[in-house]
Amino acid sequence: MGRWEPNARGRLEQAALELYGERGFERTTVVEIARRAGVTERTYFRHYADKREVLFAGSDLLRDLMEQAVARAPASAPPIEATTAALEAAASVIPDHAQARRRQAIIEANAELRERELIKLATLAEALTGALRGRGVPEPAASLAAETGIAVFKVAFERWIGDTGEADLPHYIRESLDALRTVTAEPARR
Amino acid sequence: MGRWEPNARGRLEQAALELYGERGFERTTVVEIARRAGVTERTYFRHYADKREVLFAGSDLLRDLMEQAVARAPASAPPIEATTAALEAAASVIPDHAQARRRQAIIEANAELRERELIKLATLAEALTGALRGRGVPEPAASLAAETGIAVFKVAFERWIGDTGEADLPHYIRESLDALRTVTAEPARR
Repeated sequence: MGRWEPNARGRLEQAALELYGERGFERTTVVEIARRAGVTERTYFRHYADKREVLFAGSDLLRDLMEQAVARAPASAPPIEATTAALEAAASVIPDHAQARRRQAIIEANAELRERELIKLATLAEALTGALRGRGVPEPAASLAAETGIAVFKVAFERWIGDTGEADLPHYIRESLDALRTVTAEPARR
Repeated sequence: MGRWEPNARGRLEQAALELYGERGFERTTVVEIARRAGVTERTYFRHYADKREVLFAGSDLLRDLMEQAVARAPASAPPIEATTAALEAAASVIPDHAQARRRQAIIEANAELRERELIKLATLAEALTGALRGRGVPEPAASLAAETGIAVFKVAFERWIGDTGEADLPHYIRESLDALRTVTAEPARR
């Protein structure tokens, strides 16, 4: 990171979110994002590989926080408890409601970005599976806790985004976990 | 479909699976697939938009079968039961163990194909959500039953593929549903 460009990443993310929202993802160029952020195009590419990546800058942090939360959960905690701790850790770094909503609208409007978001979620599920296995959780419990944990996160996030923003994301995570428990407690056909 | 090319789709799928397995996805051309299937390149493109699509030919059928199974479930069936019926319907058309395993190996080896597979699963989850809502299942139960249903299917499929093939896919679906029930029954941290 250049020493004359403090917080270049943060400014690039903000500029990209603004421009993608104003003009659409397709009609915005990296040059325009860099200009609005007050940095050079070269600086942009030092931080992000392409136009998509600036919208997924937080993915690595999310993964790290989720893995750490699973590792830190008490040894006695069952898989769903460790998974819940991971979801709460992830929720703690999601930007505010208005910003998350803007980002989601940009992603929903573009097939390429929707694919990238799916890859992000799949990567988080894999990391969560690995972290649960690392605690000694056997299969298929580790994969199921991780995959359903990410499903809960996705549903909770969409409900949060679609709502007024009065309740916070952890509220919707708890609501979705409760609903999942009710759904799976019902008898399945045999 | 040309009247002089009976079962062109089936032969193209078989030829693609063979060639992708022998040479890899990247090094196989549509011309080679068409030649092995005994049809023209033009016929290939009448059936599939590109090199990827021939591997995902069954996606629409899977979606239709899952939607129909949900619609056919008794009105009294809880969401998880309707979802289970959808997963069993999907399992009933999955090709045999050896072929499913070959297809999966091809997909795992290529990032573009892994993305396409994720999109397929997301599309199935959306269709399942819609079918459950159509039964009057409220949110977030509809989304959660659908998303966790697809998660169960994914985990079960991977376990089936990774195993010897003695037990069938529905066996792994039941095993995963049971494991999910155990996982979610455990208390979550509050």
